[in-house]
Amino acid sequence: MTAPEPLFLRACRRQPVERTPVWMMRQAGRYLPSYRAVRARHSFLEMCRTPELACEVTLQPIDQLGFDAAILFSDILITLPAMGLEVAFPEKGPVISSPVRDRAGIDRLAVPDPTAELGYVLEAVRQIRAGLAGRVPLIGFAGAPFTMMTYAVEGGGSKDYPHAKQLLFGDPASAHALLDKLARTCAVFLEAQVAAGAQAVQIFDSWAGVLSPEDFRAYALRYAKQVIDALRASPTWRGGGGVPIIYFVNGCAPYLTDYATSGADVLGVDFRVDIGAVRARIGEAAALQGNLDPGALFLPPEQIRARVGEILAKAGPIGHVFNLGHGVMPGTDPAHVRAMVEAVKELSARPAAPASPAGPA
Amino acid sequence: MTAPEPLFLRACRRQPVERTPVWMMRQAGRYLPSYRAVRARHSFLEMCRTPELACEVTLQPIDQLGFDAAILFSDILITLPAMGLEVAFPEKGPVISSPVRDRAGIDRLAVPDPTAELGYVLEAVRQIRAGLAGRVPLIGFAGAPFTMMTYAVEGGGSKDYPHAKQLLFGDPASAHALLDKLARTCAVFLEAQVAAGAQAVQIFDSWAGVLSPEDFRAYALRYAKQVIDALRASPTWRGGGGVPIIYFVNGCAPYLTDYATSGADVLGVDFRVDIGAVRARIGEAAALQGNLDPGALFLPPEQIRARVGEILAKAGPIGHVFNLGHGVMPGTDPAHVRAMVEAVKELSARPAAPASPAGPA
Repeated sequence: MTAPEPLFLRACRRQPVERTPVWMMRQAGRYLPSYRAVRARHSFLEMCRTPELACEVTLQPIDQLGFDAAILFSDILITLPAMGLEVAFPEKGPVISSPVRDRAGIDRLAVPDPTAELGYVLEAVRQIRAGLAGRVPLIGFAGAPFTMMTYAVEGGGSKDYPHAKQLLFGDPASAHALLDKLARTCAVFLEAQVAAGAQAVQIFDSWAGVLSPEDFRAYALRYAKQVIDALRASPTWRGGGGVPIIYFVNGCAPYLTDYATSGADVLGVDFRVDIGAVRARIGEAAALQGNLDPGALFLPPEQIRARVGEILAKAGPIGHVFNLGHGVMPGTDPAHVRAMVEAVKELSARPAAPASPAGPA
Repeated sequence: MTAPEPLFLRACRRQPVERTPVWMMRQAGRYLPSYRAVRARHSFLEMCRTPELACEVTLQPIDQLGFDAAILFSDILITLPAMGLEVAFPEKGPVISSPVRDRAGIDRLAVPDPTAELGYVLEAVRQIRAGLAGRVPLIGFAGAPFTMMTYAVEGGGSKDYPHAKQLLFGDPASAHALLDKLARTCAVFLEAQVAAGAQAVQIFDSWAGVLSPEDFRAYALRYAKQVIDALRASPTWRGGGGVPIIYFVNGCAPYLTDYATSGADVLGVDFRVDIGAVRARIGEAAALQGNLDPGALFLPPEQIRARVGEILAKAGPIGHVFNLGHGVMPGTDPAHVRAMVEAVKELSARPAAPASPAGPA
């Protein structure tokens, strides 16, 4: 008899679990002193491009805080240079010095071969798997097509996305051409991460929440589905036993009915929305991941515990992965993160759960 | 027999109208060449503080584009210097050089006397009323307490609001003290605008959409209600016949049930959410204002017209003020704005509406 799958993967598949698993977006990040120590000696891009460093910071929160999954240390924009767009990462946010805003620029972009162009990411995946030695599963990730489009077109973060919307609405054929290239890039990159050892993948649609519902369907969901469908159709994905696919739309509240049709195994739930209301709308279509406000980690530990308890109660025992509703903030006290992790583990424990022998997960 | 109230005000009060009125957030703004001509000669702050200039740019879109309401040219942050916080307005967004992050800083802030400290705004209101000469009503406005708190604490715009959340969750007593001061400031400022001639007021909660539903109730809605209640209780408001109060939460989708309880006459609807779904949840609790994506003004005029038609159909003929779901973007073609205005006027026309003599509105 084979050992049961790790806790996190079972929750993603909506299988019975002895307790709710927990990890945290940006868990390998600046809130951790040990991360800042590495960062003090290396640039952000250097860390992304050096498998040993990416591996080191990926493992730090697992060792220190007891998360139930690791997530590759990298950045969603890491694919842009391989497509032909240089990116810089100064402190105040990424900058693409030559954004694409017309058809000629879009036509010049390549769909990269991840093995040739992003080999350092795949090597990081392999080293992290080795370093984890089966303790917890490793999540790979990539930026969703629409979110990548906003960066490629705006040249960085934005408040109103004027250039992206000018392209979407003023030249939709070019916008679709760009989104298709970004979707194909996202799919082959995730497939390569799975081949290298990623045991789940998350597609980050950080800025899909800036669209009307009809445009969300036409420009964000459609291309996220293209990625999910391509991944599911790949021999790598099927050969790997079908790793869980997580789709995260930051600001999902206006789109819940459509969100449930993405085809993902797990839907990320941002912190603005009541996860009980999401559960009611999504039903059994997918597992849910979320959704504590990262800001709530500034609360005293006993109040963090109370909020954790509310979310666990609303999300229910099956098909829930506890997470923040957005990335952890740099000023967060690691002791408060530990309080969150412990609260999830204690408050969700279901000691009488059948056929769940204690394993390394 | 007195003339009927202007179209815009009747729609705010959910009274029968011969067609849906239309105006646009930031309609006195950079997309208009005539605005840019004024701006080329004066700083933004100078324009806010010079009643003649504020009056000039407020009237421009009324004369040029045919909106059914004017909105005071000003900025929500204009109250901060009067409270004791200096603000600068460089191109890339406002900067408060000494933000407040502790109780001492909060205790030093004053609730200003608008007549003494913000007289230039009130004089602008008077000049605009005179300049409008009854053509369309004038909307005054102020920033909602929670949104003002994010600026006062962060020192400018933000993506994750780390300092504001640190205050909210780490020192809630101080956060409440600050919100109370901001609510009192907002209420007396709006009251003074009504006394000076504003015929409706809008409370902008631009960043309330960064809260979990329970925190939205505790920190945003509660203080917006304090403003609305104080305004309704004031002799000025009652003496003015009770001007309509508009409350606009940017990113309202997660909070609709609570939003309906604000006590406002009109609820602003941002562009991310289906206005038909909002209508279904809000019912008859308030009129709705919105909600075309400002980005959709980059569409060809015939497609703008189609989107206008969809919104009109979903919002219904009673209790709807057509607007964008957020401020118009600088690169927008005024001809496309005109196409939107004409589409609203033509597609919502109800020629057989009883007892609606054609008036100046």
